[in-house]
Amino acid sequence: MNMVELIRRKRDGGRLSPEELQAFVRGVSRAPSDGGVTDYQAAALLMAIYFRGLDGAELATLTDAMLHSGDVLDLSDIVGAKVDKHSTGGVGDKISLHLAPAVAACGVYVPMISGRGLGHTGGTLDKLEAIPGFDVNLDEARFRHTLRDAGLALIGQTERLAPADKRLYALRDVTGTVESIPLIAASIMSKKLAEGIDGLVLDVKVGSGAFMKTAERGRELAQTLVEIGKRAGKRVTAFLTDMNQPLGRWIGNAVEVQESLAVLNGQGEPDLVELTVELGGEMLLLGGAVKSHDEGRARIARSLADGTALARFLRCVELQGGKIPTTRWFPEEHQEVEAGAGYVQRIDAEAIGMAALRLGAGRTRKEDAVDHGAWVRVIAKVGERVEPGHPVALFSRPKDAGTAAEVHERLRTAFTLGATPPAPQPLILEVIR
Amino acid sequence: MNMVELIRRKRDGGRLSPEELQAFVRGVSRAPSDGGVTDYQAAALLMAIYFRGLDGAELATLTDAMLHSGDVLDLSDIVGAKVDKHSTGGVGDKISLHLAPAVAACGVYVPMISGRGLGHTGGTLDKLEAIPGFDVNLDEARFRHTLRDAGLALIGQTERLAPADKRLYALRDVTGTVESIPLIAASIMSKKLAEGIDGLVLDVKVGSGAFMKTAERGRELAQTLVEIGKRAGKRVTAFLTDMNQPLGRWIGNAVEVQESLAVLNGQGEPDLVELTVELGGEMLLLGGAVKSHDEGRARIARSLADGTALARFLRCVELQGGKIPTTRWFPEEHQEVEAGAGYVQRIDAEAIGMAALRLGAGRTRKEDAVDHGAWVRVIAKVGERVEPGHPVALFSRPKDAGTAAEVHERLRTAFTLGATPPAPQPLILEVIR
Repeated sequence: MNMVELIRRKRDGGRLSPEELQAFVRGVSRAPSDGGVTDYQAAALLMAIYFRGLDGAELATLTDAMLHSGDVLDLSDIVGAKVDKHSTGGVGDKISLHLAPAVAACGVYVPMISGRGLGHTGGTLDKLEAIPGFDVNLDEARFRHTLRDAGLALIGQTERLAPADKRLYALRDVTGTVESIPLIAASIMSKKLAEGIDGLVLDVKVGSGAFMKTAERGRELAQTLVEIGKRAGKRVTAFLTDMNQPLGRWIGNAVEVQESLAVLNGQGEPDLVELTVELGGEMLLLGGAVKSHDEGRARIARSLADGTALARFLRCVELQGGKIPTTRWFPEEHQEVEAGAGYVQRIDAEAIGMAALRLGAGRTRKEDAVDHGAWVRVIAKVGERVEPGHPVALFSRPKDAGTAAEVHERLRTAFTLGATPPAPQPLILEVIR
Repeated sequence: MNMVELIRRKRDGGRLSPEELQAFVRGVSRAPSDGGVTDYQAAALLMAIYFRGLDGAELATLTDAMLHSGDVLDLSDIVGAKVDKHSTGGVGDKISLHLAPAVAACGVYVPMISGRGLGHTGGTLDKLEAIPGFDVNLDEARFRHTLRDAGLALIGQTERLAPADKRLYALRDVTGTVESIPLIAASIMSKKLAEGIDGLVLDVKVGSGAFMKTAERGRELAQTLVEIGKRAGKRVTAFLTDMNQPLGRWIGNAVEVQESLAVLNGQGEPDLVELTVELGGEMLLLGGAVKSHDEGRARIARSLADGTALARFLRCVELQGGKIPTTRWFPEEHQEVEAGAGYVQRIDAEAIGMAALRLGAGRTRKEDAVDHGAWVRVIAKVGERVEPGHPVALFSRPKDAGTAAEVHERLRTAFTLGATPPAPQPLILEVIR
């Protein structure tokens, strides 16, 4: 493989052959001292791809080569459909925590491999780790045992899963090539397709709190993800969903588990329940457990109401070594944020995420630790009325007064109020199959 | 400086501030272990610049920062105008060898810093080193002495001249970012402006044997070079000249010195003389030695006819330790190449350059040695008639039969013959001041 030729061809808008893309990924999986690709040539190619894109065939080959750069799970000995969900990340997005057990309760296995939070969006692993004792680093035997027994398993990415993606992701992060739809898509799908699943539901977030700020960009990503999945022979559906305000009312780690438990107890916030029923219904459809999306929706709703989803969640927590505290397990002490009176017109979800991050609920660098107790609570969501003197949000006590003032200001300015109720906005914007 | 932010801004078509460009060049002048910029971030920025370009102000700042990354010559103690010429590289381009002494003979100093050949174009330094004993690596004292005495000095780039350009050039070479007009222009001008000159004439080659294949690209480069020069307060003129066939009739190293000596003896090939008179006339004009370009042309022509240019050249060779052999100093043994009969319509100059390269006259990697004796001779130039059974080219004996067959084929197919003479093509396409 002549890397300069590859770079020049892509730079000039040409296509890379399957052999070239495979050789590139092999090169990425090796150290330069061991005949691997150098960081600078990989960086130049990533930037050329940023500008020129990849066509469907190139993307399928790249993704396939990346997923085969490491271990690929074979779950065929677990009889039954295996379907996962992936969200591109939002603020207050704790859907996975209750969605996975709901789907499992309806007879479809959910082998879910999640990531950690970075920047203003939270990560499922961090939330799970707020449960004392919960172990997200299971070995393969324990992972299989948990999946077979509980119907779901919630773990983190191992070193051996798509190692080429690890190196490319780290490089993209420092070379300004993160925001490339084909590269985002190949990164997501290489990890998901290594899970040994039959189907995948994608929740592509769109709006102020998402990586994709516009529906147009979100749609492009969703279509790209679905195409890669189909080329790999999987059943894939993508939902474009609104991320212009946080999901639910709590943002943090322990608090989000708590809010998720409320959904599993049949007392969930309407937006959380709606999204869970939509995504879960589709997962059942892809897994062949129901005949229609509507039937799937009804089944998921029932599992949340009758306690079967909760039972699956508690069994999963038990098998993964966790124990849900019976007393309140996050600090109650807090400050109030007022933003005037009237109907909430808009909430800047990214600003809310940044406030939670500043409180310690998230991290800006991979090596940072997370404060599982820190939280933000949204009192007034879009369309709700705020009476004079009432708060729009609360936040947990920060380390120092400077942080308190900064978080207060971020939250205050995140809310826009007006005299009349805004037009209602749908949560589900589009479904791409 | 936040490199990721710089990369992202340029990637999105934004501008980099003077402070940012200066910090980048400082970072490039240092090892990453010493707080310098990493190769992968520099590569990503170079690719972003490839796609987005640099505006006039950015380019002026980048070039200035690059030239000040190393030593800048101060030749103000040598009283009189100092003017140099730079060619973007062509096949058979030995113009510098006789142009510099001709201009010196007319009273303008020529402190010429040249490069080595790479790929199908030759380098002035390699040709000079075909002269036994000729030293292109003078220290500054000897360089000044030669310039003052002979009126010219012909040397190579030192380690201390524009070191930031050295690192960036090496990186561009392996990351597919060579063919970027702003990066080419900054590289050329950072070195030329470090020479302590008052004026500069640029010979931008256009055609099959040049880096710029079209007049449009050549014009863009020429305009960019002139703009950088003017912003730096220098008098600069760029010529767009034809490189659709080799200059003169000989391609190699010793043979090109020989052909250059013929020009200095008043017996030069018409195209060599025409280009020398054009470029030299302009150098005299920029140096203030003449009142008009026409007067400059006449003065240069006279210096070639009356032996004063030759005397300057011989003095320079002597001062730089060289001795022109009095006997034939390249192998006479050769093979003939026939290509049919008729009028030569076209010559693929790049193919001729590649044939010479294959014979050993050039190098594909910086560390390769050059065979100063290897050569190609063009018998029939564009518009000339070839009788049946007569050769169109000759080439010196290669190492082995395989090389001979390959070179023969390359040369044979480089010539296109036809029944009628082609329309004459001008050598000077455009002048940009």
